[in-house]
Amino acid sequence: MMDCKTALVESGGDIAEAEVILRKRGIASASKKAARATRQGVVASYIHPGSQLGVLVEVNCETDFVARTDEFKQLVHEVAMQIAALDPRFIRKEDVTEDVLAKEREIQRERVLAEGKPAQVADKIVDGRMNKFFEEVCLYEQPFIKDPTTTIGQLISSKIAKTGENITVARFVRFKVGDVAGE
Amino acid sequence: MMDCKTALVESGGDIAEAEVILRKRGIASASKKAARATRQGVVASYIHPGSQLGVLVEVNCETDFVARTDEFKQLVHEVAMQIAALDPRFIRKEDVTEDVLAKEREIQRERVLAEGKPAQVADKIVDGRMNKFFEEVCLYEQPFIKDPTTTIGQLISSKIAKTGENITVARFVRFKVGDVAGE
Repeated sequence: MMDCKTALVESGGDIAEAEVILRKRGIASASKKAARATRQGVVASYIHPGSQLGVLVEVNCETDFVARTDEFKQLVHEVAMQIAALDPRFIRKEDVTEDVLAKEREIQRERVLAEGKPAQVADKIVDGRMNKFFEEVCLYEQPFIKDPTTTIGQLISSKIAKTGENITVARFVRFKVGDVAGE
Repeated sequence: MMDCKTALVESGGDIAEAEVILRKRGIASASKKAARATRQGVVASYIHPGSQLGVLVEVNCETDFVARTDEFKQLVHEVAMQIAALDPRFIRKEDVTEDVLAKEREIQRERVLAEGKPAQVADKIVDGRMNKFFEEVCLYEQPFIKDPTTTIGQLISSKIAKTGENITVARFVRFKVGDVAGE
């Protein structure tokens, strides 16, 4: 979208006009998107030296054209390394399951009350600590290991702006030798 | 075990004596195994050219010594390629879930009866077709793509015999772009 907008602006149209065109196109493009059955993207892996830890990740975009670019492949590689390093449990905040959420809120609430904080401010403090929790367990909320001033979500947003395509982490797994007990 | 046995036999002991020693050692080794908290092995990946399909697999053995050998790494690589090529859903027969099993038996039974086979032989025919089903969906039952006269289970057994260590596929995943629907 942003690329498209920049192009329109640079090609001489004014911003207001660009907005109108983009909003019209936005509607057209959304219905086109829904009709596209097969999504594009790449599957990539990162095996940590020593082969005791590995990650497999699928990152999707809208066209094969973007999926083939070095910049997209580089992004996928960064995401795979991030997962290897910081071991997220979910992709987004919304993916945190209800039971995990309820359990964590309860733990944090008990901690806050045990610290002697008044009950009327406890909820606010718990909210703050839950954000900290999301930063730990959700890939998109984690600070990017190579540049902790940005999150993975922001890193992906910058690539969406640059390519003009929606980009999403579809799924990932992280295997560490010894995590599962064998017979 | 076999390596150990061969060594004992070659070093002059007779087979009966070797069996006794091995059985005694077997007990000692089993209890030693149970005490070993961390299992050894490697995590490896296979990304099919084009990056549209990828596999991550963890294969375990008993010692780091075996895990580091080229032969073990080669085995893990073969297993990863097998999973990419033949898309198994389970590791072993025993891993096929009850509902999948029940559903498949029902489908096969209906097919057999629809073919006009008498009810008293239907079960036997269904058993035969279930074995075919296991060969399709269970990694260990699948014919090895590089040598279809052997199964992956047999391939692993031959490595167990050779190394004298238990070797198991602990887990795997296979991602194909477009398999999951994104928003």
